[in-house]
Amino acid sequence: MPTAFPHDSVGLVTPQVLHFAEPLALASGRSLADYQLVYETYGQLNAARSNAVLICHALSGHHHAAGYHSADERKPGWWDSYIGPGKPIDTNKFFVVSLNNLGGCNGSTGPSSINPATGKPFGADFPVLTVEDWVHSQARLADALGIEQWAAVIGGSLGGMQAMQWTISYPERVRHCVAIASAPKLSAQNIAFNEVARQAILTDPQFHGGHFQEQGEIPKRGLMLARMVGHITYLSDDAMGEKFGRGLKSDKLNYDFHSVEFQVESYLRYQGEEFSTRFDANTYLLMTKALDYYDPAAAHHGDLAKTLAGVKADFCVISFTTDWRFSPARSREIVDALTAARKNVCYLEIDAPQGHDAFLMPIARYQQGFSSYMQRIKV
Amino acid sequence: MPTAFPHDSVGLVTPQVLHFAEPLALASGRSLADYQLVYETYGQLNAARSNAVLICHALSGHHHAAGYHSADERKPGWWDSYIGPGKPIDTNKFFVVSLNNLGGCNGSTGPSSINPATGKPFGADFPVLTVEDWVHSQARLADALGIEQWAAVIGGSLGGMQAMQWTISYPERVRHCVAIASAPKLSAQNIAFNEVARQAILTDPQFHGGHFQEQGEIPKRGLMLARMVGHITYLSDDAMGEKFGRGLKSDKLNYDFHSVEFQVESYLRYQGEEFSTRFDANTYLLMTKALDYYDPAAAHHGDLAKTLAGVKADFCVISFTTDWRFSPARSREIVDALTAARKNVCYLEIDAPQGHDAFLMPIARYQQGFSSYMQRIKV
Repeated sequence: MPTAFPHDSVGLVTPQVLHFAEPLALASGRSLADYQLVYETYGQLNAARSNAVLICHALSGHHHAAGYHSADERKPGWWDSYIGPGKPIDTNKFFVVSLNNLGGCNGSTGPSSINPATGKPFGADFPVLTVEDWVHSQARLADALGIEQWAAVIGGSLGGMQAMQWTISYPERVRHCVAIASAPKLSAQNIAFNEVARQAILTDPQFHGGHFQEQGEIPKRGLMLARMVGHITYLSDDAMGEKFGRGLKSDKLNYDFHSVEFQVESYLRYQGEEFSTRFDANTYLLMTKALDYYDPAAAHHGDLAKTLAGVKADFCVISFTTDWRFSPARSREIVDALTAARKNVCYLEIDAPQGHDAFLMPIARYQQGFSSYMQRIKV
Repeated sequence: MPTAFPHDSVGLVTPQVLHFAEPLALASGRSLADYQLVYETYGQLNAARSNAVLICHALSGHHHAAGYHSADERKPGWWDSYIGPGKPIDTNKFFVVSLNNLGGCNGSTGPSSINPATGKPFGADFPVLTVEDWVHSQARLADALGIEQWAAVIGGSLGGMQAMQWTISYPERVRHCVAIASAPKLSAQNIAFNEVARQAILTDPQFHGGHFQEQGEIPKRGLMLARMVGHITYLSDDAMGEKFGRGLKSDKLNYDFHSVEFQVESYLRYQGEEFSTRFDANTYLLMTKALDYYDPAAAHHGDLAKTLAGVKADFCVISFTTDWRFSPARSREIVDALTAARKNVCYLEIDAPQGHDAFLMPIARYQQGFSSYMQRIKV
């Protein structure tokens, strides 16, 4: 039976799993005895092993970035607009690796995995991870795949932080870094939003101190609220206005607290509820903590240029005008530090109404600029 | 024993209560059989009864706007910087009335009052109110105080909406309207933040469908989360950055989910917890609904200028540059509509870093501009 995937799709993909038996020391002082990572690859690794690209995912992302897991999967991977034959991350040229981060809930070892020490799910006992920890775990994945050096490490949002950290932790192993809709650290407001999301989860009676799996429960309300707050920060005020305005669900107002009056309310509730059924609460906490903690310049008293002094990679930094989660000003901090450190950096500020979510969307000038940068990479 | 209040304070004030025995018909189609309003007054009503000013409060406000309830009250009323002898709302000139809105939780009839029909607290059975309902209830307060026409109706945020609605509902009864940090209606993003706050309260198991008082419980977690979200929107990103930056609570990171790592987290948790002990959850829901529903232009197919065509009051509209809850652009919508309707309007955009909260704060240019407008009012 023929399957009809779009001509510019990577087509059918099968996730793979690698097990790492050597303990991984973590920033917190703790360590993981062993772990597994689930990942997908698109395109072919060339003989020189010089065309590999790593995709780092954002807060709620995973390894399934492009293509389809089956012929009847309704939607392709989360970054399918950007990965595929002829797309900015061109799989005719590049061998693309996309993983689910350690601590995730899509197949890599994380809080919902079984803790070998207890035979029960880790839950809240899973160690808190940092962006640096992720990069180290990803370096082992590169080793296992025989990739000495990435042609590029690429990510949006929290993924951009990982891409940047690669150039700091492993300067010899990255030729290009593409950091999209990202920031060199969170602002107080960013941390504040994360804290609201965390408190929503932590105070949900069904969170059970992080051991809800053992109780056969899910902190659904907490996750729903966390996602609702998140969603507001992913969209621009204008994008929300254009999408929903003050559109009413029905002709007349209900004048009660439970009815959905405005379309934006039902959108948020739907997003929140859907998310709460598929995402792990401990992973959500862990991801927000990794965001909060990330501050590579702290090692040099806040001087990001000094932190980036040893970087060997060229950079492409991309931001979006209406992104208020990580505004263009935050991307410019990275650009300015790179410039001060005399590194090669290309900066693209895209006029787009979609807010932070723009990094996931097909936007002509973004696609062109991103493509153009990727095409110039020598493999 | 002498009490030493500041020389520009209205000094000791005593809240008063008025009972209204006539039923109040509401926008929802329901009605309140009777109700009481608690209010304070500052200054003296002149013989012509032409110097009365009404203060309308915002989401979590109340009647205690200026002065002190006792000699040992630590902080004066919430708008003490703007009300008093020699201050912008000069009590040497004006007779100032400040009330707790119907549906409130500071002494006026609201969800925590006893429902005469059942002998139990109203709780969730208290009717949902609109800005228009409040204005009608305030008009009865004016009647009872013998005030035929307000020299000015003044409010910030949700209070500004009430001030504007006064000029629409009772054009003959308002000479001046001062609408500060306000908007002619909520945006989709504004509604979205309200919806998160409501869901936090509604999904708290201790909310008990709004009848938590009968259960002897409080939806503390829900109120805490609602207030935390609110607080983020009251402060500008810059103000938060300046106040907290990425300041740590202790020298080293804890790498867990429960510890407070950053100062902004402890600030938010404190604000949330403090609020949850003093504010009624049903009132909070009610206030956010009143905000969502307010849209005076809807009666004229979105044409605010037409809605304001019958207005007789002069307007002073004030906004703050870093306010992102109700940005200057939202105030300018009011100004533009007034201009299109050929009304007398003065607009003041204040350069202030504090965000939405700026309307409560002593800021020199704001004080001067506000003072100057108030001084020109003839009484």
